[in-house]
Amino acid sequence: MKKDKISEATTGRLSIYLRCLLELENQGLEKISSEKMAEVFHLNSAQIRKDLANFGEFGVRGIGYNVAILKEHIQKILGLDREYNVCIIGSGRLGTALTDYYRLSATNFKVVALFDNDKEKIGQKLGNVPVLDIKNFRSEAKKAKIDLAVIAVPAKLAQGVLDEITAAGIYAVMNFAPVPLKKGKGIKIKTVDLTTSLESLSYFLTNPDSGEGDLI
Amino acid sequence: MKKDKISEATTGRLSIYLRCLLELENQGLEKISSEKMAEVFHLNSAQIRKDLANFGEFGVRGIGYNVAILKEHIQKILGLDREYNVCIIGSGRLGTALTDYYRLSATNFKVVALFDNDKEKIGQKLGNVPVLDIKNFRSEAKKAKIDLAVIAVPAKLAQGVLDEITAAGIYAVMNFAPVPLKKGKGIKIKTVDLTTSLESLSYFLTNPDSGEGDLI
Repeated sequence: MKKDKISEATTGRLSIYLRCLLELENQGLEKISSEKMAEVFHLNSAQIRKDLANFGEFGVRGIGYNVAILKEHIQKILGLDREYNVCIIGSGRLGTALTDYYRLSATNFKVVALFDNDKEKIGQKLGNVPVLDIKNFRSEAKKAKIDLAVIAVPAKLAQGVLDEITAAGIYAVMNFAPVPLKKGKGIKIKTVDLTTSLESLSYFLTNPDSGEGDLI
Repeated sequence: MKKDKISEATTGRLSIYLRCLLELENQGLEKISSEKMAEVFHLNSAQIRKDLANFGEFGVRGIGYNVAILKEHIQKILGLDREYNVCIIGSGRLGTALTDYYRLSATNFKVVALFDNDKEKIGQKLGNVPVLDIKNFRSEAKKAKIDLAVIAVPAKLAQGVLDEITAAGIYAVMNFAPVPLKKGKGIKIKTVDLTTSLESLSYFLTNPDSGEGDLI
């Protein structure tokens, strides 16, 4: 397998192919062509072939892809051949909704702790996920072997939380706080800004001729 | 003002500048330079100047930008000089969390209705937002003058919901369902895939040399 860097757009598409393959496997299908996969899942068959060709010769002309083998390869590329321990910081509406969302989805991401600074919330549990005191973040994060932290606190608290995450030696962060953050070297942040996302749609509503493509 | 198409990356940055300007205005600041703005908000000053130059000459060399004027211009570009009526389809954990999130944030997006197919939820209220029957979507959406619909239903229901939205004459959709959707002409979809977002981070954890840049 080539170990070239691949873009975020490509990893995003690989995630989608993977989800399609998992569904096909559930349906008991063993082989699928790129054309059929494109048709069933509203994707682009040329793009599928191009993306997959980056990683070697998976397809057989006229027969297509072996669903199980292709699935395993994509899982390996995306680092999904293992489980990740996730913590969510901020146990407000958004933090608890995210906890439930990931807790109830069958993914490789296991929410093992919520953190908050609210004395009334600390010590409670959401399903089997405990709400811990943000004051003890570094020691608790090490104890729970956290791989990935999700920031779901108000904007003005987000930078302080990111600094704590960094001090705890966590390198991967998903940030829902609507504010630019200053990060240390080697830290990767994926920002999901729920307001910016709506604003890209209001731009489109104001400029309906701004193009047909979907927003990323 | 030029009316050239601008990319989603640019509208995303304009959203961020706008949020910074609103905060500066709250602090009573009248002028700011691109350098100072970059410093305070961890942004890139050359990028700020380039983005804003697309829309005319806002800055004065050596003095900087007038906060109030620049704010109004960006609001106009992004279509934020008016309010939008939003409905959220699916009143599960995610749908209700999103309703609260937008209801409590001071944005131009006003959540006016939730839709569900669960008889126990229909007729209830979340704050002042009623939960309506998805069966009556088209008539209720027209009555409530919905501009923008948010899909927060399970993957297998999402395509049916999108078809209803389209039939109701709504052109802007934010989709949280983790599935590719087939859309009609003129419809804009912004997908926020909470699983794909984590998978881009697991790729990074597996390939820490895959680059320093933030994920979009």
